[in-house]
Amino acid sequence: MSATGKNRVVALCGGIGGAKLALGLSRVVAGADLMAVVNTGDDFEHLGLAISPDLDTVMYTLAGLDDPQRGWGRRDETWTFMSALEALGGESWFALGDGDLATHIERTRRLAAGEALSAITADFCRRLGVAARVLPMTDDIVRTHLRTADGWLDFQDYFVRHRCAPQVLEVIYDGDAAARAHPDVLAALGDPRLRAVVICPSNPFLSIEPILAVGGLREAIARTAAPVIAVSPIIGGRAVKGPTAKMMSELGVEVSAAAVARRYQDLLDAYVLDHADAAEAAKLAIPVTVADTLMTTLADRENLARHVLASADALAKATA
Amino acid sequence: MSATGKNRVVALCGGIGGAKLALGLSRVVAGADLMAVVNTGDDFEHLGLAISPDLDTVMYTLAGLDDPQRGWGRRDETWTFMSALEALGGESWFALGDGDLATHIERTRRLAAGEALSAITADFCRRLGVAARVLPMTDDIVRTHLRTADGWLDFQDYFVRHRCAPQVLEVIYDGDAAARAHPDVLAALGDPRLRAVVICPSNPFLSIEPILAVGGLREAIARTAAPVIAVSPIIGGRAVKGPTAKMMSELGVEVSAAAVARRYQDLLDAYVLDHADAAEAAKLAIPVTVADTLMTTLADRENLARHVLASADALAKATA
Repeated sequence: MSATGKNRVVALCGGIGGAKLALGLSRVVAGADLMAVVNTGDDFEHLGLAISPDLDTVMYTLAGLDDPQRGWGRRDETWTFMSALEALGGESWFALGDGDLATHIERTRRLAAGEALSAITADFCRRLGVAARVLPMTDDIVRTHLRTADGWLDFQDYFVRHRCAPQVLEVIYDGDAAARAHPDVLAALGDPRLRAVVICPSNPFLSIEPILAVGGLREAIARTAAPVIAVSPIIGGRAVKGPTAKMMSELGVEVSAAAVARRYQDLLDAYVLDHADAAEAAKLAIPVTVADTLMTTLADRENLARHVLASADALAKATA
Repeated sequence: MSATGKNRVVALCGGIGGAKLALGLSRVVAGADLMAVVNTGDDFEHLGLAISPDLDTVMYTLAGLDDPQRGWGRRDETWTFMSALEALGGESWFALGDGDLATHIERTRRLAAGEALSAITADFCRRLGVAARVLPMTDDIVRTHLRTADGWLDFQDYFVRHRCAPQVLEVIYDGDAAARAHPDVLAALGDPRLRAVVICPSNPFLSIEPILAVGGLREAIARTAAPVIAVSPIIGGRAVKGPTAKMMSELGVEVSAAAVARRYQDLLDAYVLDHADAAEAAKLAIPVTVADTLMTTLADRENLARHVLASADALAKATA
């Protein structure tokens, strides 16, 4: 528990970068006091299976089942299914490991039986020994679509099949207007025990903004009494992984840590950027702290988590 | 081609025993001249997947992908999916190998897209290099149900989950009256080039009789000009594998090679039994030939296939 008596943390996150900080937070925040609210705009149906890439990356990471080399999927994975599928002429552009398939098949079965994605995820997490609460940003269907120079593309088409090559002109979150945030997320944001809301270093367009687009979520974050702190996904003017920097320049956004902060500046009480971008602080009208944000080791993840929470606690104290 | 100028063979078969003789036949009959008509009464939906155990056993066997030790599934299989599924609390009573899953997932996807099981099976076989035609007994849904001392059971519940333990009182093939045989099967049975119809050594109640129950099939076999020959699944008064003998005695049928023949005697022109059961010949009113019917080696499978076809040719010559 923090010095202020508040012990709950809500983290908004996408896949790889978000999962890294979520893991750090899970090691410095007690069990169920951490709630990870995960992007599901990347979800899609493939081979008849309901696939939730970010949700699974966060779940596998918190369960210690993630593959640290690839950054997605499960460790000690086998690939017998994919090679057999190719031999049968099936679609093989999206790699599905044999162990990972169990998650998709069992999730698809339970969704078809009428269970909510949040309930299925909670049960999977419980069985895999994840103490933190992991929640999809919504139980409703929101799908990220990209208008590109090659026309409209579904997210996974863009991301996996086209390897982020097409120039992005616009990003929309189909279904966002009708989607509702999970009541437990809204309750957590209104909880007087809330210590901080952490916006993880994930792609703003593909991971964070779909979450903020879910009906009621942005407003609930704006209203929360707790400090809201984002961590820059840009280090030294470049994205650590993925298409963030490329998309920013294609969309006419300056590729910088400050430019990411400006996208949600109305929500933020503070921003954490890397030492490499310390000069960016001057461009922002909100408090900025500087840290080592490149999370290579487990200690890096824990240290960044501690830094973010300490910044939040300092803000809360200053306000109190 | 046989001495009579007829070169086509239709084989009716279930899973393991049937697949063994189908493999033998595929090695002594040229490519597409062999048509295997396979029981689908064992098919079921599991974890949202359309599973066709006998069809897959025949397909894998003819493709050289079968696991010779287990007798079902694929060789060089991995089991990562099953252990991950168990960890998630999924149903694990039916073992699905990682490579085998590709067949079920791709079949399920294509069925949902409106393709017929026969068309999907033909495409899989082509891709796996199977020259023989493998056809499900019908594209319609027929499901074997068993009335047991413990109540009605679906086939896989009885066979896998309950390991054939409950006493069987009655066997029905739900949907048989409405099911239609594939037109190509009916055409093959009426083809003047048909050399023989072979009823493989499969369980009569669970593999052969569901096929014969499909609308039009029994009549088409009864009408065919070619010799119809069955091979006994009983050797020395015992079943080689599976619950055949146990079911026969539970259903009040004598456990003998002759008793199996009597179940389709109206269709048969001849019957092949094992040397161990030679004395059974006297109980039957149809021509009987004696062979080594226990198929341990590949040579055993080929030798039995040759014996069956030679018996058919001898009958055809005698009739001509």
